[in-house]
Amino acid sequence: MSKGARTRAAILDRATGLASQVGLTGLTIGVLADDLKLSKSGLFAHFRSKEALQIDVLNHAATRFAETVVRPALQQPRGAARMRALFERWMSWEHDVALPGGCVFVAAAAELDDRPGPVRERLVALQRDWIEVLATSVRKGVESGLFRADTDPDEFAQDMYGIMLASHFHSRLMGDAGAEARARRAFTRLLEGVHK
Amino acid sequence: MSKGARTRAAILDRATGLASQVGLTGLTIGVLADDLKLSKSGLFAHFRSKEALQIDVLNHAATRFAETVVRPALQQPRGAARMRALFERWMSWEHDVALPGGCVFVAAAAELDDRPGPVRERLVALQRDWIEVLATSVRKGVESGLFRADTDPDEFAQDMYGIMLASHFHSRLMGDAGAEARARRAFTRLLEGVHK
Repeated sequence: MSKGARTRAAILDRATGLASQVGLTGLTIGVLADDLKLSKSGLFAHFRSKEALQIDVLNHAATRFAETVVRPALQQPRGAARMRALFERWMSWEHDVALPGGCVFVAAAAELDDRPGPVRERLVALQRDWIEVLATSVRKGVESGLFRADTDPDEFAQDMYGIMLASHFHSRLMGDAGAEARARRAFTRLLEGVHK
Repeated sequence: MSKGARTRAAILDRATGLASQVGLTGLTIGVLADDLKLSKSGLFAHFRSKEALQIDVLNHAATRFAETVVRPALQQPRGAARMRALFERWMSWEHDVALPGGCVFVAAAAELDDRPGPVRERLVALQRDWIEVLATSVRKGVESGLFRADTDPDEFAQDMYGIMLASHFHSRLMGDAGAEARARRAFTRLLEGVHK
């Protein structure tokens, strides 16, 4: 990486952590400049606008998500092992040191669902990719004869998403220490329901 | 209701709708004054501060939620009928005409999970009440011998929450027309799992 690229990556690390706390729409070039004690004009040279910064943060977080969640999980054998790896790594993502405020995508989803524009479009595209990873992994389990033939991959993916969102909500907002254990039991039941 | 109380209720209706769109933390006295074409000083007479306004909006939405979701559902017989009424009315709440941006509590949860203070505390208390309604309704189903004795009411409540959150996310953000049907199937499976 060039010095410029390294600086940019370091700024985006911090910006992503900040977005996990103040929300993606709360992340402006001014807020980031204050946090990093850099000049706004310097940051404007890296990120041309608030929207460009927010999109870069989403892409930056997605790259990290791909590296720490998706890629290692897809190396697991098809079927239950792969689904469980996707689930466990997704749960751990919540506690990623880079995200003191939790999953930046969950925060952004609630903020952006009513705000059309390029940032929302990018978020939707990234989420569609992730849901597709989940559904495709289920489909491969079915194709390999590991999961029941009547399994609906989109339904499984949505149910899995719900388990994660409820865990996020119950632990982060409600401070419920039992939330993650309940989420794991729900996922085990979901998996047992499709396993042959 | 006195004229003052009626005016206040009308303002809170509009404020709650606005909060469902711009988020609860985006709802300031200035934003509300612009929207209602009223003076900021007039609104300050009703709501002493931004935090007081936000708490009033949460309480106002909770009253409506109690009237349209909780109370009628609790009139259903214990067991599956009551749980299904709670679920269906909760799903419909999403489409309440007063909430053009969807559930104000879901939006607020994502915004406030990292922001300590009185608004967050009020949200948590209201959500705790709602989760308790769900868990208690499950418990009564168990006590009446309708649900299996090994049913965990808190687990059921969290699973139900997840189904609703995933439906919200998949339909509102992802524009997925099949999301609610999937959520209903997931809920039916959840209910079948505890039914004797």
